[in-house]
Amino acid sequence: MNYADLPTPCLVVDEAVLDDNVTRMAGLARDRGLLLRPHAKTHKSPELARRQLAAGAVGLTVATLSEALVFADAGVDDLFVAYPVWVDRHRADLLRALLDRGARLTIGCDSAESGALLARHAPGVDVLVEVDSGHRRSGLPPAEAGTVARDLVRLGLGVRGVFTFPGHSYAPGARQQAARDEAAALATAAASLNTQGIRCDVVSGGSTPSLEYADSGVVTELRPGVYVFGDAQQWELGACEPGQVALTCLATVVGVRPGFVVLDGGSKALGADRAPWATGAGRLLDHPDARLVQLSEHHAVVAWSDREPPPVRGDRLRVVPNHVCNAVNLADELVVVRGEEVVAFWPVAARGANT
Amino acid sequence: MNYADLPTPCLVVDEAVLDDNVTRMAGLARDRGLLLRPHAKTHKSPELARRQLAAGAVGLTVATLSEALVFADAGVDDLFVAYPVWVDRHRADLLRALLDRGARLTIGCDSAESGALLARHAPGVDVLVEVDSGHRRSGLPPAEAGTVARDLVRLGLGVRGVFTFPGHSYAPGARQQAARDEAAALATAAASLNTQGIRCDVVSGGSTPSLEYADSGVVTELRPGVYVFGDAQQWELGACEPGQVALTCLATVVGVRPGFVVLDGGSKALGADRAPWATGAGRLLDHPDARLVQLSEHHAVVAWSDREPPPVRGDRLRVVPNHVCNAVNLADELVVVRGEEVVAFWPVAARGANT
Repeated sequence: MNYADLPTPCLVVDEAVLDDNVTRMAGLARDRGLLLRPHAKTHKSPELARRQLAAGAVGLTVATLSEALVFADAGVDDLFVAYPVWVDRHRADLLRALLDRGARLTIGCDSAESGALLARHAPGVDVLVEVDSGHRRSGLPPAEAGTVARDLVRLGLGVRGVFTFPGHSYAPGARQQAARDEAAALATAAASLNTQGIRCDVVSGGSTPSLEYADSGVVTELRPGVYVFGDAQQWELGACEPGQVALTCLATVVGVRPGFVVLDGGSKALGADRAPWATGAGRLLDHPDARLVQLSEHHAVVAWSDREPPPVRGDRLRVVPNHVCNAVNLADELVVVRGEEVVAFWPVAARGANT
Repeated sequence: MNYADLPTPCLVVDEAVLDDNVTRMAGLARDRGLLLRPHAKTHKSPELARRQLAAGAVGLTVATLSEALVFADAGVDDLFVAYPVWVDRHRADLLRALLDRGARLTIGCDSAESGALLARHAPGVDVLVEVDSGHRRSGLPPAEAGTVARDLVRLGLGVRGVFTFPGHSYAPGARQQAARDEAAALATAAASLNTQGIRCDVVSGGSTPSLEYADSGVVTELRPGVYVFGDAQQWELGACEPGQVALTCLATVVGVRPGFVVLDGGSKALGADRAPWATGAGRLLDHPDARLVQLSEHHAVVAWSDREPPPVRGDRLRVVPNHVCNAVNLADELVVVRGEEVVAFWPVAARGANT
């Protein structure tokens, strides 16, 4: 199949740009003496995981047990579930299936209550204690990590260290401060474990926007996800260049009127993410002045700069989703291209694996 | 399977509320002498389509040719694709497959260019001319409908009338004015066709928020989608009552801290829709004072009112997505319940059918 024959909208991965991103991040971690454990929730693809591991990643991060199972079945043997997993009946089945696969498994935990369920259904499993470094989502206040860790050790769990997600890096000008907050929170949490006589071998952090500033005197491991593809959020935060965007949604112009162009890629292909600071609902890779000003399920209305001639109906444009993780989770497969040649279709094997 | 054993997050449909919604809308259309052609992009489910048709709908509306094909294969024999379809090579194959099914097919069109492609690949197919009634998405200025319709007739297409989507009804206090705009635009468009000597048998409008105010002196057909389930947007716009919300995302409490609760249903289960006027990223059906203040892919942070005691980890809450169409498009199936008894799983058969 030729690029021109692809149905639109569809998600297209530029293999050369992708491989550059994978290699560059592996090099950055290596240069700083940090372990790299990429977050696979972004790509949900065993083929992409294989490339990350081949480039030097020590294992994968995932968000859910069902996602972990997809990658365990694909042969990934070291998985960290970076989530405060609550083991109900269904998740107990997933945990058992995962342990049966024999993968090395580490689970996030931020309370003795969830630890007790982990200890019942996966006795002795390794855990990292989650702390909040400023994102105000999940995770303990850092100074409380040691007390909870002590409870988890008493439950027989293998406490190996601490982790955080400095998600407040997702705002203009916030990247460096988020990295500082991350380092401070993780240092406090690690000391809090030590106070309880618990070793802290793993100190895990890292979001794609903050990672450039991660403090390698504190952090031992990075868990970026989005870096493999980049997206409009990273572009607008200055965490990637347009030339580093490896995934776009190919969309067809279905309407034109003065100042505006309508595309067939809407929120069911791109995701509806639009942070308050985003300049639109997505960007066009080859037309940086254009903005997706309105997004419906199957329409994107693009404000077209009068500095360049508008496209015509039937033209195909490359849309950069605001948040690539949610775009990928809408697709059954990724189309992989070298230049304009379609070279592969990668299944989004863990699509919808939310449990 | 019992309700308590469902994996979370998952989308749950309350069958009794759903059937009430289907029946009520059918009655509203009948009472006003209007035809009802529900938009199936909301539910993407043949079983739900069957119920809408049994209640008196004349056919279905869909957004894409691939969605049309799913419903044609499920036996629906009257389908309107409410979209300015651009027939490229892939869509030509879809069109041919649809015509082979023998369903009565009508396609949206807002230009002679897209009409020429329709005429080449589906000679003589019925079309409705799309006009813009204020949403500023696709569609012609209403007064230009006749000129384009004349071109389409010359191409041999079966011009049957006009349609619009008054999507600017999705804003606080905008419902009634949007319905007025809809009526004005459709009346102008219909007159514009008549001026060219073209009959206008179908005058199609109707969004869920504006529909209550639709002008039955102008409109002949309504195309609401969201009404079957309701969602937080409709709730906040006053277009449905909480008791009319038929679909919720069942989510588990995985974290609690003073004033906040963390759920395992994030944007990969709910969708990331958040209109500027929305009070949050979703609502809780049984706790109307609570607000989803922060949404990640697998976390929802809920601000909990101090007027009621907070839940504990492991509790399950019913989340109302902001925009149900995008939530449904993330799921492979809908869990159907009567009370707390699980009675069916309906496949989201047209999930991801974006082409």
